[in-house]
Amino acid sequence: METLNIDCLVSYGDDFVARLDRRLAHWRDQGWPVPARTLCLRPAAETCGESELLLGEPAHILHYLQKYPEALHRLRWIQSSFAGVDALAGLALPSSCKLTAMKAAFGPLISEYVFGHLLSYRRDFLVYRQQQADKLWRQHSYRSIAGETLLVVGLGGIGRHLLTTARHFGMRTLGVCRTGVSDVDADAIYPVSALQRALAQADVVVLALPATADSRKLMDAAALSALKPGALLFNVGRGVLVDDPALLQALDAGIVAHAWLDVFQQEPLPADHPFWSHAGVTVTPHVAALTFEQDLADFYGDNLARWLCGKPLLGEVDLARGY
Amino acid sequence: METLNIDCLVSYGDDFVARLDRRLAHWRDQGWPVPARTLCLRPAAETCGESELLLGEPAHILHYLQKYPEALHRLRWIQSSFAGVDALAGLALPSSCKLTAMKAAFGPLISEYVFGHLLSYRRDFLVYRQQQADKLWRQHSYRSIAGETLLVVGLGGIGRHLLTTARHFGMRTLGVCRTGVSDVDADAIYPVSALQRALAQADVVVLALPATADSRKLMDAAALSALKPGALLFNVGRGVLVDDPALLQALDAGIVAHAWLDVFQQEPLPADHPFWSHAGVTVTPHVAALTFEQDLADFYGDNLARWLCGKPLLGEVDLARGY
Repeated sequence: METLNIDCLVSYGDDFVARLDRRLAHWRDQGWPVPARTLCLRPAAETCGESELLLGEPAHILHYLQKYPEALHRLRWIQSSFAGVDALAGLALPSSCKLTAMKAAFGPLISEYVFGHLLSYRRDFLVYRQQQADKLWRQHSYRSIAGETLLVVGLGGIGRHLLTTARHFGMRTLGVCRTGVSDVDADAIYPVSALQRALAQADVVVLALPATADSRKLMDAAALSALKPGALLFNVGRGVLVDDPALLQALDAGIVAHAWLDVFQQEPLPADHPFWSHAGVTVTPHVAALTFEQDLADFYGDNLARWLCGKPLLGEVDLARGY
Repeated sequence: METLNIDCLVSYGDDFVARLDRRLAHWRDQGWPVPARTLCLRPAAETCGESELLLGEPAHILHYLQKYPEALHRLRWIQSSFAGVDALAGLALPSSCKLTAMKAAFGPLISEYVFGHLLSYRRDFLVYRQQQADKLWRQHSYRSIAGETLLVVGLGGIGRHLLTTARHFGMRTLGVCRTGVSDVDADAIYPVSALQRALAQADVVVLALPATADSRKLMDAAALSALKPGALLFNVGRGVLVDDPALLQALDAGIVAHAWLDVFQQEPLPADHPFWSHAGVTVTPHVAALTFEQDLADFYGDNLARWLCGKPLLGEVDLARGY
């Protein structure tokens, strides 16, 4: 049986390969003409440019291609194990090499993060935790999230999943995307040019955009001032989407009641950054959606089946556009 | 216009009456033959038995009927503002008087409570909160709730909503109800006689049963020992569903990794109860679903329309059965 060599920037075990094989077999069972191949995953640095396929995290990919620039002319497909590939923005990728990002699996994880935090906040979990420590039985009235308005900025796979979760909980759903045209099932969709009009209606705003030249500091002082006083803000996209000093001002002014930030302009967040100690900010260390090895294997296995059959790849990235 | 007198055990304002009127008008617009009536809501104690309708919390209803037993022969319909009416279990209600419980609105609120807590736990929110206080950037791997199995014991309106939310998050869904026969959309439904078989499969168990002779101490030592080690338990039904000492033993043995308890055999939970200070227990003061006045008005308004048209009432309770 012919071997398919794959250069990897992380070491994967036998379980990972077995899972890839299962996905290939699955698509073969579905009638796809997937040829039988022995998959051979090798550390990229040791092969020094023998494979046409590369798998790894964006920062590792960049580092590898800077160290071995000749690989760029041999590689035909690079799979990023992350959704966001802004680390590769400066890369001049020849047209002979495709780049794909793992995009599918993060929606549910981001929904868990956003709605876990939103419900904890609206339902006073920390208040009741303190009361339990004090053995204090006291009820507080609360607001259900049903009937509130959730706005998602960025309608990729993550934004779409957030909207379905919001709808499940009875929320009114708004979306903003570049064009304002989307097949997403929401109560209203706005183009980026009408961002402030959308922000003005939202009780909860979730930023789920990639980092691009256009999205940089999208949430600046002007955008933040369009919010209803007491709005809640989540950033699960990229740190550069937010103008940090403007957000701190909006928090201090009560425009934003609370912000949950999982991504930052510099990561790890520097120890002297005011977000760490602001009572209105929840800082998490870029964990809203981690890449689980088994999910990556399933996604990459599906994409390998497509590659071997000459079908269009999933999650293809246009580096000029940035996502 | 004729007046419809309603005796109330809590004082409601003009907003409440206006909301009732709007519901009556709504059903009239839908073509129902709802006669025009001027609603007159009065404190029950002052009327001393002039109205046929009574509205209040179960404990207040019991107290009122014990004080004015003659009212039982005049009343034709009692609406409880709570879902659980076990406080009225001993009441000998003449067949001339219907009893209804407010059942519809609690599902979404209980879903918010259960999934907010479940996601906070699985996604380490308290760990990250402590790390933020320490300005520590450190990621921890986690499990998505997708693929986990959630078992709901009790398939009334609350249990059903929990199952739809679990399904939205990609969980496997199991249900237990008295007969094992239900039209609920779940992966499997078991009768109470097979409770232990259902418990053995569950990662998360939610008790959403009323308090009846049959459900008392349903979660005893035998039931708890059927759980997978590390199972999570929620009690949003009634305190008597759980054998407290057996649960404490199961927590200490690691059979139950964490329990969220919103209801207790005695409420408020006595200050010397070990639940308050057990690290594996989250105590909340019966807030998983509060009755919001506007939701009660909508429910009662709909039921008043049915009453006035002679249609079957919503949420009718069979006191012999207990719910």
